[in-house]
This record gives sequence, structure tokens and C-alpha cells, in this order.
Amino acid sequence: MNALVELKSELRAISDLNAAAMVLEWDQNTYMPPGGADARGRQIALLSRLAHERRSAKRMGELLSELSAMADAESVDGALVRRALRDYQRATKVPAELMEAISNHGSVLYSAWAAARKANDFEAVRPLLEKNLELSKRYAEHFEVDHPIDAFVDEHDPGMTAASLKTLFSSLRADLVPIVEALLARPEPDRSFLDADYPEEKQLAFAAEVSAALGYDFQRGRQDLTHHPFMIRFSSGDVRITTRVDPRDFTDCLFGTIHETGHALYEQNIDRAFDGTPLGAGTSTGVHESQSRLWENLVGRSRPFWEHMYPKLQATFPEPLADVSLDDFHRAINTVERGLVRVDSDEVTYNLHVMLRFDLECAMLEGELAIRDLPEAWNARMEADLGTKPPTDTLGCLQDVHWYCIPIGGAFQGYTLGNLMSAQFFGAASKALPELDAQLAKGEVGPLRSWLTENIYRHGATYFPDELIQRTTGAALSPEPFLAYLRKKYGPLYDVEL
Amino acid sequence: MNALVELKSELRAISDLNAAAMVLEWDQNTYMPPGGADARGRQIALLSRLAHERRSAKRMGELLSELSAMADAESVDGALVRRALRDYQRATKVPAELMEAISNHGSVLYSAWAAARKANDFEAVRPLLEKNLELSKRYAEHFEVDHPIDAFVDEHDPGMTAASLKTLFSSLRADLVPIVEALLARPEPDRSFLDADYPEEKQLAFAAEVSAALGYDFQRGRQDLTHHPFMIRFSSGDVRITTRVDPRDFTDCLFGTIHETGHALYEQNIDRAFDGTPLGAGTSTGVHESQSRLWENLVGRSRPFWEHMYPKLQATFPEPLADVSLDDFHRAINTVERGLVRVDSDEVTYNLHVMLRFDLECAMLEGELAIRDLPEAWNARMEADLGTKPPTDTLGCLQDVHWYCIPIGGAFQGYTLGNLMSAQFFGAASKALPELDAQLAKGEVGPLRSWLTENIYRHGATYFPDELIQRTTGAALSPEPFLAYLRKKYGPLYDVEL
Repeated sequence: MNALVELKSELRAISDLNAAAMVLEWDQNTYMPPGGADARGRQIALLSRLAHERRSAKRMGELLSELSAMADAESVDGALVRRALRDYQRATKVPAELMEAISNHGSVLYSAWAAARKANDFEAVRPLLEKNLELSKRYAEHFEVDHPIDAFVDEHDPGMTAASLKTLFSSLRADLVPIVEALLARPEPDRSFLDADYPEEKQLAFAAEVSAALGYDFQRGRQDLTHHPFMIRFSSGDVRITTRVDPRDFTDCLFGTIHETGHALYEQNIDRAFDGTPLGAGTSTGVHESQSRLWENLVGRSRPFWEHMYPKLQATFPEPLADVSLDDFHRAINTVERGLVRVDSDEVTYNLHVMLRFDLECAMLEGELAIRDLPEAWNARMEADLGTKPPTDTLGCLQDVHWYCIPIGGAFQGYTLGNLMSAQFFGAASKALPELDAQLAKGEVGPLRSWLTENIYRHGATYFPDELIQRTTGAALSPEPFLAYLRKKYGPLYDVEL
Repeated sequence: MNALVELKSELRAISDLNAAAMVLEWDQNTYMPPGGADARGRQIALLSRLAHERRSAKRMGELLSELSAMADAESVDGALVRRALRDYQRATKVPAELMEAISNHGSVLYSAWAAARKANDFEAVRPLLEKNLELSKRYAEHFEVDHPIDAFVDEHDPGMTAASLKTLFSSLRADLVPIVEALLARPEPDRSFLDADYPEEKQLAFAAEVSAALGYDFQRGRQDLTHHPFMIRFSSGDVRITTRVDPRDFTDCLFGTIHETGHALYEQNIDRAFDGTPLGAGTSTGVHESQSRLWENLVGRSRPFWEHMYPKLQATFPEPLADVSLDDFHRAINTVERGLVRVDSDEVTYNLHVMLRFDLECAMLEGELAIRDLPEAWNARMEADLGTKPPTDTLGCLQDVHWYCIPIGGAFQGYTLGNLMSAQFFGAASKALPELDAQLAKGEVGPLRSWLTENIYRHGATYFPDELIQRTTGAALSPEPFLAYLRKKYGPLYDVEL
């Protein structure tokens, strides 16, 4: 058999094994009865192990070595070999025993974290977290990198490093902190009408209607309820989203749905020919997040979007919203807050929460920050950036699950990269589509979605993020478009010069 | 590693792969969007292939050969090795190419059948069905059996053969045909109130209530809607059932739910220590069906059961049922009919439908019946046994999917074996529980379920069917208990001497 044909057949099997594991995970999060938990964990672990064995198999190495000349080609097959080679190299770098130790420790740590978070007892989980940091460092040692976090960053956001991120983030932070201060000095918008009776069924129906209107194809997807919302892809024909509903606050379900719809629009519009190959997926965590945030914030919290949608929302929930003007509504859903919790934070302060975590991760991996000093470091940085101090570790360094179930490092930077990219991509789209605002105000999202599909979605993982951003926006990634977007939007909203 | 430990570890992986494939099938039948179909077929095929490769692996043969001395032991491990050896021998008998040819032809034939059935066009599917018969014969040639159907029967109902089934079935048929004739000569019960408005939500809630009352554990299972109801086991902690709802007829949902609950009670009550081994499953198709039918018919269509449940049913559906007496209701749900369709048939005529199929399968595999003569043979037998002739092949030999998607042979006898066993098991339970009728009339199903768990369920596949029946009922399988049950129940119901 031709090496490329054999490679593709093997990649397809790996993709199918991963997809099967994801179906099991989706079921675990949606419909699985409690009694199924033990066996399900074992079943998913087996499928993951089988996929990993094939990804790191000797034969895979031989095939890729035979095809290595193709890795420089401009063609689709060239991109495929590049990605496959990268996956193979990552999969073979770390010894299986260390991977297993990390995975096993992750389960133990996760349970301890859940209890410690509930009890606000950082000390209870500290020794286990210390061991996780130790394992994370050992993991990073298997990569030839300048900074240990690069081993993790490269997995999620190829092309990025501690050095490039620190430069990018320090520049962003320098401008962002004064913007936040200026906004927080202004009177807070009235949000009282957001805390009202919003029946669950109506919320779900409205969210699904919005999702479909944005272009999510329910014939190739579906929406279910889960504790934490997510998007998951089993194939180009089956890309699902989930949401949750708070009967006293429709924003969680609605903006969560738009967020996951953004992820799903990316996946649903990747060239179907890439199915079953490493190209049939979003190209990085950051680029993926740029699409969820673009639809959630740059579209979903924009004035033009609500010009079209607000009358429909009012018709759905007449009781709380009939007497609320579009302007008041728009201000309320764009409130900037001195919040303690990342996942509840607004688009202006959000990146401060993320950069805090990234910087602490770097410091921990560098050995500059000991785990026992983590709570204090966290609180000090919150005070410096947001002028507020968590009253408990539950609302501080225990709030996110990431450090307590997977290695420390690389899980956060993608959120901020996504926000920066979302504004840069949207800016490029606005240039190409001069009528974009007017179109959104008429509910016409087709032109924007088509532009994104043409320039980003259909390519899947063909281009690494740097190249994609350059091709699509004509420039390297920069915080400027995002900062300009914030200034332009929030200056008038808060009636302040930014 | 000790050979037994290694065998168990390998069996667990096979079990987990099968369970994963079943989760994917469950999702395919319940929630998968249409777009997911292509990739899903491929994903399931991959998992099945991986499971088959392990089942038939050289190392599996070596382990079993090393452990062969244990296969005679009375212990649980002895039973485990016996089952594993049997699975290995079956898995290695048929060449992989033939298995693949059968599977591929099954897909083609299935699509052609669906169209032919709709169009009542047997000729359109005849050549493909002839090829399926040819493949089925080739499959059977790989087994040392007296009759080709034995190769298939042995898979589903170990211990049974064409010879033993022909003896059993001819004896049953000889007694059954006159019973049916006697009942059909009597006036038909009034069933008009069964055709009324039964709201779907209420049907589902009532069916779930009944299922829970029979002992189905929703913490280790759940019920969903599918086109065809089924029970499926992913682990002892996750055994799911499905149902469907006809808003003009509650019996489909209710008795279908009780039927699947019977299957599920078996699986939920197998010793949890057998999880992940070949012992952690029902021991045969016939014994499995005996439990679905025992709960559906011997309990669920009995007078005592409805003494307790009927007031609840009336309270749920007051409009159609308030003025219907318990006796009239009980007669209506036990109507015997000259029906054409197996899946809609009552418990008296059902076995005639099944035995017709079994006898035709034997004749086809023997070369005594050509495919082109199948419609005529089918209709002649319907006339002889049930005094009715299908007006179309859609209602005749095209009605069941079995011959049109898997090899011909072995898929039907289990239904009748199950019916015979259900009466024999219930008879033994009644002897052990003298108050059983009174208990059922009070809604106390615990004693019956405990007896079944103790004698049948907990053992899983430890005993082959023959041994299980002998141990549990003190006798070999016989049609007599079933015939006695029919005479005792339907004589008074129809006011006729049987």
C-alpha cells in the first residue's frame, strides 16, 4: 500500500477512536445514569489508550519518515503530513508511565479539589497540588523548550511561547487596567430586570432559535443540557452543543448558547473532505475561542444584533422586558464588574483574570512561586488588577478546575488569545463587508458567516494559527484591534473617554 | 502474569470495546442527528472489528489452551473459561473475509429490503436474498454440525439443534393449532375502549411508574424513545430500555415497557462481580426472552397484576377507562386474533408465527425451499396454522427484517423458546411462592423478583440454558407448562373447554 494511503487509513482509525471516546463522554455528561460512572471511566480510558498507542506506534513513525519530504509541500496532503508529524512527535516524547502517573494523579487530585473547594480548604489539597506541579515539570522536561510552559502552550496554541505571550500580555495588561479603572469609576448600569422570572422552556426555545439563526445546523447537531456547557465534534455531520438554564437569568443560557454555537459553526463548516484526518478540527485553542467569542461578544452583545433580536426577546419574555428600552437592555448585558470569578466576568475584565492565571502558571513552573504561596499571590494580583480581594480561596485560587485535574500550564492563555483574535478577525471581516452592521441589524448573519467560513472555518487545521491570522487579517496577532474595539464600544456605553 | 489474570484483563477490554460500540448504537437510535449517520457506521464497525480481533487473537488461543484444564471445574472461573473458550472457538471458525462479505451484503440487502417492503415487491429483493442464503450456507459449512441451522442456533441458544427444536416445536404446534381454533371460534372481546385518546406524556409516566414498581432501577438505567424498543447493557450499572408511544393505544408503550423491563431486570441483577467477563450477560436469547415475556405476559397481562394496577391506570386515563370493568379490561388486553404480523400478535398465536419462520429457515438452508418459492410457502403455512392468508408480501415474507440484514437462520427460535421457558420458570416460582397470586394482587412483586434473581438472574451466563432450566425447574424444557398456562388462562377468559 502507498504510504500516504496507509497513513490516512491509520489517521482515520485514530480519529474514529477519539470520536467514539467523545460520544461516551457526551453521554456521561448528558444522559448517563449515576450507576454507569465506574465502567464508563474505564471504557473511555481504554479508547484513549488505543488511540494513543496508534498515534505513537512504530509504524506511524515509519510512514511519516517515508513521507517527510511532503511536509514542506503547500498542498493539503502537505498540511496533513505536517500535522500528523507534529502529533506523532508530541505523542512519542513523553514516556507512557509518566502519562499514566499524570492521569491517575489527576483523578485523585480532582476529587480532593472538589471537596477542598466546597470547604474553602486550600491546605487540604496543597500537597496533591504540589505533586501535580512536580509531575508537570517532569512532563515539560521531555521537550526541548526555553520555558517549561512552552511544552503545554505548544499543544494548545502552536507557535506561541512563554516569551511571546509575556510580551503580548504585558502590553495588553498595561492598557487594560486603566480602561477597567475608568469604567468602574462610572455609575453601574441598571440590571435589575435581568433578575426576573424567565421560564426555562422559553429560554431554551429562544436560545435554539438564535443558534439556528446564526447558522448552526441542527440536522448535523443538537443541543442538550449539561452542568457545564460545551461543544463536541464526532464528525463533520455531528457537532453538538450543550447549555444550562438559570430560571432567574436568561443571559447564562443565551450567551452560553451563542458561545458554543460559535465553536460549532467553526467545526460544522470545516471542509468535509478533512473528516477523519488531523485537518478536520479547529487549528488551535485560541483560534477556536476566537470564534466562540466573536459570535458571543462582537455579534451577540452588539447593538446591531439586538436591533433585530430585541423585539423577539421582548415578545418571548414580555413581563420583565416590555418596558425596558433597547439602549437600557444593551447597557445591562454589557456591564463591567469588579468580579472575582473568571467564568462570570465581562469581556473587559475577563482577560485580567486569564493573564493572572498564566503569569502564576509561569511562576510556579519556573520555581519562583511555591504552591504554599499561591493563595497570597493570587489575592495580591486580584487587588492590583481589579481592586478586589477574594474573601475565600473558593472564590480565589480554588475556583477553576484546570490546575486540579491536568498538568499545570497551557490551559488558560487560549482564552485571551481568542479574545484578541476575535477582534482582529472581526475587524478584517468589517473591512471586507462594509455593510456588516446594517446586515446584522436586519438579522442577516449570512455574509459574516460566509466570510468566516471562506477565510477560517473551511481550512480546519490546514494553517497553523500565525499563518492563518496573517493570511486572514494581513497582520500578525496584536492586542490593538481588541483594545480599539473595547474603547469604541465601552466609551459611549459608559459615557467616558477611554 | 498468571494466565487467568491475563485472560480476565483481555476479556474486560473486549467487554469494554463492545460496550463502547453499544453506547454508539444507543445514541444512533435515540439522539444522533441525521448528519451523523455515515461516520457513526464507520465508528461502530471499527470498534466491532477491534473487539473481534482480540476475541480471535492468537494470544487468546494460547491463554485458553493453557487454562483448558479449568474448563471442567465447577467454579466461577471454570464457567468463565468455558464461555471464553466457546466464544474463541466461534470467533476463529469463520474466515474474516467471509464475515466481511456477510456484513457488507447485509447493508446492501437491508436497504433493498426497506424499499421492497414499502413497495410490496419481493421480486426486487429476491436476487439479493438468494445471495444471502448462499452466504449463510457458506458460513454454516465452517461448523461441524448435523444441520446448517445449528451453526446459527448454537450462537444464540447454545445446546439447541435443528433436531431438538423440530421435536419440541412439532409437539407444541400440534397442541397449539386446536387451541387457537377453539378460541377464534368464540366471540371476540370488546376492545373498542383501547382505541381512544391516551396522551403521550401520561403514557410515558405511567409506563415508567410500572417499570420502577417491577424493580427496574432508574439509578442504573433510563428509558428513552426509539422507533423499535430495545434493552441495552453497557455495564451492570447502566442497563437502558427504550419504548415508543402511540397516542391512540397505550398498550404498545405499556406492554413494550414491561417487556424491556423484563430484559433489564435480568441484566441489572447479574452478580456485579461478573462485570467485564462473558458471564456478565444473559445466558441465551431464549432465557433472555423468557424474562421479558414472563414479566410482560405471565405478570403484566395477569388478573392479579391488574387488580392492583387497574385503579391506577383508570386514574391516569379516566376518560376512556372509568366505566370499563376490570374483567372487561383484562379480556381486552388478552384478545386472541387471526393476525398477520408477528410483532403485533397475542401470546397464544405468537409461537405459530415464530415456528413458521423457523421451519422455513430450515427448509431454505436444506435446499428444500428455493427463495423464489418463499412467498407461496409462507402464505400456505399461514393458511394452515392461522386460517388467514397475507394479502401482500409486505404483510407476509417481507415483514421481518431478520433475513434481510443478517445470515438466514437462528434469529427466531429464541422467541418461542422464551415463551416456553417463561411458563416453566413461572410455574417453578409459583410452587416456591404459594402466595404469589395474592402478592401480585397487592402489587408485591419483590418475592417473585427475588426468586428469579436467586435462581436465574444473578448467575448471568454461568450455566448454559439446559443446565439452568434443570437446576431451576427440576425438569428439562417442555412445552407442557406453557400449554397448561394457556389452557388455564384462556379457557375461562373465552368460556371454552381447551
